[in-house]
Amino acid sequence: MSARLPAPLAPPASSGWTVADSLCAVEQLCFDLIQPRGESAICLPRGPAAAACHHFQAGGRRIRARLALDVACRLGMAASDAVAIAAACELLHNASLIHDDLQDRDPVRRGRDTVWKRFGDDVAICTGDLLLSAAYAAIAGFSQTALLPEMLRLVHLRTAAAVQGQCADMLPRSRYLDDIGAYERIVVAKSGALLSLPIELAMIGSGHRHWNAVARESAEHFSVGYQIVDDLEDWSKDANAAGAPAMNAFLVIAAAENGSTGSTGATAGGIALARQHLSLAARSARRLPLGSGALLAELADALRCQL
Amino acid sequence: MSARLPAPLAPPASSGWTVADSLCAVEQLCFDLIQPRGESAICLPRGPAAAACHHFQAGGRRIRARLALDVACRLGMAASDAVAIAAACELLHNASLIHDDLQDRDPVRRGRDTVWKRFGDDVAICTGDLLLSAAYAAIAGFSQTALLPEMLRLVHLRTAAAVQGQCADMLPRSRYLDDIGAYERIVVAKSGALLSLPIELAMIGSGHRHWNAVARESAEHFSVGYQIVDDLEDWSKDANAAGAPAMNAFLVIAAAENGSTGSTGATAGGIALARQHLSLAARSARRLPLGSGALLAELADALRCQL
Repeated sequence: MSARLPAPLAPPASSGWTVADSLCAVEQLCFDLIQPRGESAICLPRGPAAAACHHFQAGGRRIRARLALDVACRLGMAASDAVAIAAACELLHNASLIHDDLQDRDPVRRGRDTVWKRFGDDVAICTGDLLLSAAYAAIAGFSQTALLPEMLRLVHLRTAAAVQGQCADMLPRSRYLDDIGAYERIVVAKSGALLSLPIELAMIGSGHRHWNAVARESAEHFSVGYQIVDDLEDWSKDANAAGAPAMNAFLVIAAAENGSTGSTGATAGGIALARQHLSLAARSARRLPLGSGALLAELADALRCQL
Repeated sequence: MSARLPAPLAPPASSGWTVADSLCAVEQLCFDLIQPRGESAICLPRGPAAAACHHFQAGGRRIRARLALDVACRLGMAASDAVAIAAACELLHNASLIHDDLQDRDPVRRGRDTVWKRFGDDVAICTGDLLLSAAYAAIAGFSQTALLPEMLRLVHLRTAAAVQGQCADMLPRSRYLDDIGAYERIVVAKSGALLSLPIELAMIGSGHRHWNAVARESAEHFSVGYQIVDDLEDWSKDANAAGAPAMNAFLVIAAAENGSTGSTGATAGGIALARQHLSLAARSARRLPLGSGALLAELADALRCQL
């Protein structure tokens, strides 16, 4: 499908602003939207706004914000518009992390207590809700209001996919991970949707929406490659801790790919499959117009080189 | 403050459509947005989309949708625009119900299992997220895109208030309910914000945003009056079940109002306070332009007459 699209044009457009400067503006917008000053605001020292600040202050690489900013910058979008979509994607991603941590009972993220661990389950539910809502309020800052309906619908489509993917991932593995296709569909829904979104929104905002299928293809391959690497690391830790390989998602994939459930064969099969997805991710990213897929391609290459 | 505003004009404008017909369109839009058909959709028989349908099919009075439609109709808005904001408010309200039921561990709503009870905690979290996101996608259907930023920001402001109010309501009562003012602030945030929203959005959409302070005042008084009645009923049930009055929110209010913690004095004090709020709600609603507060005024009067 992507073979019919024209090759990327070079060099990238200059937008008169930098990704680094705009990242600070994204952080500021996120904090402002987490703590809206309404007439009926209640001050809760340990409520959702405080919990959201705790979560955000722990840092993170802000990959989704960087992707949105980088693509938007290369495609000539105004800085304020780029910041609006970058903040939306970052808020959405962090909303999903807070709810996922609660569901998975993960106690630590980025070296700090997770929200449910520090503030309790109820506050964690409310904090995720607050960030999800804030993401849409961030989109409201996009200046071309005629594009807002398309953007809002896309954000919902990707959010709905992520929510379904998260649920599928929590169901008993044996029901949904009996083949590599099922594994990939779950990862694409759970992670690919929200990774694709920053690029897709920047494409819509800059008049390049016809490239969204390629952007999505790239983000989806990247997310599957990344997830296999992540599962491989988890499996390696589990194996060291328990003295025997755990029956996790990675083993299923690797076995499917490799015809073997032994740990060496599984590792080799998993690595080969991850490399393949990351190569495809980089290749699709490099097809995007005006070099706008450069950051995603670099991320895919960097991860592949580590394997 | 409201004394400075002009009196409502009569008679109500005719918009060429009826609230009853549009309610069906609202239901349909809600169902469509719960089950978006994206490229990366996963089919989960017991996932968030199925759970959301289970929840919606249980019915409910759709008060917020009716309020949005009634106000919009009287103010001459197009049916499709009215449906968009009505669906948004209804989806938002139901998102909050699903998460509240989980947090409060309520097993039954509208005669059916609640979502967490039927589908588990994880699916309940995801289902609330799905509906919250769908609410914003509904707003995307509003035709005057220049008004979308204002609407989106207002939806976030009211959602953030509701989320904070829900958290405040779950914290130990003694910390936040030591005076009637604190009780009212929590109710206004938790319930008033999402009850006010349908009217406020209809006001913005029809060029009457300068009436929003009055709309909010009315919805806030209504929500406090309603909550007192609800707490009174709960207290009455608790008292019958346990043989002694429970120390719940209602007793605190009633005691504060009445100087007595005895059950008869508390009931009388609570009823008097609820009547006062409901009268104020109806009075403010009747000040709204073109008779647009008629439904809220009727609801307030009907509830007051039951006391």
